[in-house]
Amino acid sequence: MKPISTQNDPLPSWNEDTNKKAIIDFVKAVTTEDDKTYVPALDRVAVFDNDGTLWSEKPFYFQLFFALDRVKALADAHPEWHDQQPYKDILEDDIEGFLSGGMKALLEVVMATHSNTTSEEFEQIVLDWIVSARHPTTGRLYTEMIYQPMLELLEYLQANGFRNYIASAGGIEFMRAWVEDVYRIPPEQVIGSSIETKFEIQDGYPVLVRIPKLDFVDDHEGKPVGIHKFIGRRPILAMGNSDGDLQMFQWTSAGKGPRFIGLIHHTDNQREWAYDRESLVGKLDKALDEARQKNWTIVDMKTDWRIVYPWES
Amino acid sequence: MKPISTQNDPLPSWNEDTNKKAIIDFVKAVTTEDDKTYVPALDRVAVFDNDGTLWSEKPFYFQLFFALDRVKALADAHPEWHDQQPYKDILEDDIEGFLSGGMKALLEVVMATHSNTTSEEFEQIVLDWIVSARHPTTGRLYTEMIYQPMLELLEYLQANGFRNYIASAGGIEFMRAWVEDVYRIPPEQVIGSSIETKFEIQDGYPVLVRIPKLDFVDDHEGKPVGIHKFIGRRPILAMGNSDGDLQMFQWTSAGKGPRFIGLIHHTDNQREWAYDRESLVGKLDKALDEARQKNWTIVDMKTDWRIVYPWES
Repeated sequence: MKPISTQNDPLPSWNEDTNKKAIIDFVKAVTTEDDKTYVPALDRVAVFDNDGTLWSEKPFYFQLFFALDRVKALADAHPEWHDQQPYKDILEDDIEGFLSGGMKALLEVVMATHSNTTSEEFEQIVLDWIVSARHPTTGRLYTEMIYQPMLELLEYLQANGFRNYIASAGGIEFMRAWVEDVYRIPPEQVIGSSIETKFEIQDGYPVLVRIPKLDFVDDHEGKPVGIHKFIGRRPILAMGNSDGDLQMFQWTSAGKGPRFIGLIHHTDNQREWAYDRESLVGKLDKALDEARQKNWTIVDMKTDWRIVYPWES
Repeated sequence: MKPISTQNDPLPSWNEDTNKKAIIDFVKAVTTEDDKTYVPALDRVAVFDNDGTLWSEKPFYFQLFFALDRVKALADAHPEWHDQQPYKDILEDDIEGFLSGGMKALLEVVMATHSNTTSEEFEQIVLDWIVSARHPTTGRLYTEMIYQPMLELLEYLQANGFRNYIASAGGIEFMRAWVEDVYRIPPEQVIGSSIETKFEIQDGYPVLVRIPKLDFVDDHEGKPVGIHKFIGRRPILAMGNSDGDLQMFQWTSAGKGPRFIGLIHHTDNQREWAYDRESLVGKLDKALDEARQKNWTIVDMKTDWRIVYPWES
């Protein structure tokens, strides 16, 4: 293991191989004035998927554990759930059974656990959960299971005038509650899936009530749609890890001038997880083929990253 | 007329009365460290309505003139429009007739003129129009009919660490094409009404196609919804001029700590227009009552503004 030298090396957790060099070369190319590849600071927009790109997503998306914990927390107020699917499975800790209900069961649980609060109440519920809930296999806080090399990359980009955005299929309000503390990404730079909200005056106090109705799904074709809607500029750098990021990659790479597309390939079964084409969570198949075909940067977790999680250092 | 002294006076086009002082006092209160009223820069979010707040909106919202001009530009490709309402009225310059069709006619024309292009094509169409179209009574470019006092306010706030957002019922893509040049507000700080877009690969090139289907109406109850969706923070300053801004005012003012709510009252029939409770465009009725009741700042255009449009100076 090489010694860390943050002073000279902006990416100490990245091994000295071509991908680290590709990142640094790109940043130098777009920030060196007088270079043909120079990009003004206002246009230095970077977009990052979250699940599997900035933090882990196994055995399931972490937000799903939040939803399952919410079902249990709300069960006293919903005695009928004990005899009603998909809640019954969850309350009996039969996660396999619950998952066999597919997208329909998933959506129902997400709606039941993410709505019927005000936006302020929901933020507090997420905050209470994120500082206490523990990952089922590592026993760590979920916010500890973030990738040290990506934290360094976010900081390196920000120091070079980039604005880092999250573009995730995860819930926008779920992420906004904690990403500023964890990634230094402010709420206005978070794009995600959403349910509808409704403005109401409750007892003289204006609130936004969360409605159990899908507003926007920020995944696959939705990612460029969301990026364009929220930012109105085309990013010059995009990183993701699954087929859900492919259209974001295509949209980003089609712009004029220098572009950086980075695909995180989960290859490390020792320190994290190894999965791609056959995985239910974070399936990476078409995007892997297209990345190889178009010479996008494929980050091999096992060989590229000297450290995966912050606690290893 | 007093001499302009931009060096010492950040708001030279505002007359020396209590409203100018109220603005400056507020900015000092939230930017003076160690004051109880201090607000960290990240939370200094300001939201501005556009039509009637940053530029004029008479005789009709300027975007409507864009739509009418588009009907004429597209008429050759739509010979059926010459015998079909509401297009027939527009092509015969019978604007009164067209407006008598109400919201239904308006929505049909907006959809027909704002969709079925890619996002890039639409931006170019707006840009071509905004640099050439002329206001029907002043003969000025629409972008000349912006308020000099508000330009100064935007600059003053920005110089004090604020991030200025537009929150307008106008089309988000219509505004983004030109507001950065005109107001120094970047596209990612523009919130507006939108139609849906769809990601497609056309001849190998990824595009976003604009679909004739409403996505979001950023007006009345929609304004706090849009602000929360796009920014995820509650603004500390809001300015608007009509009942469509009332819920934005309520949402902004309900936050903890110092708040500034500014209502532009159109009172100057000489230099601009005078209208409020009875006006179809920019109707100001309930918001005027609530502003008086809650002691929000009511900007009287006639007495507060030494200059209205930039060309007067």
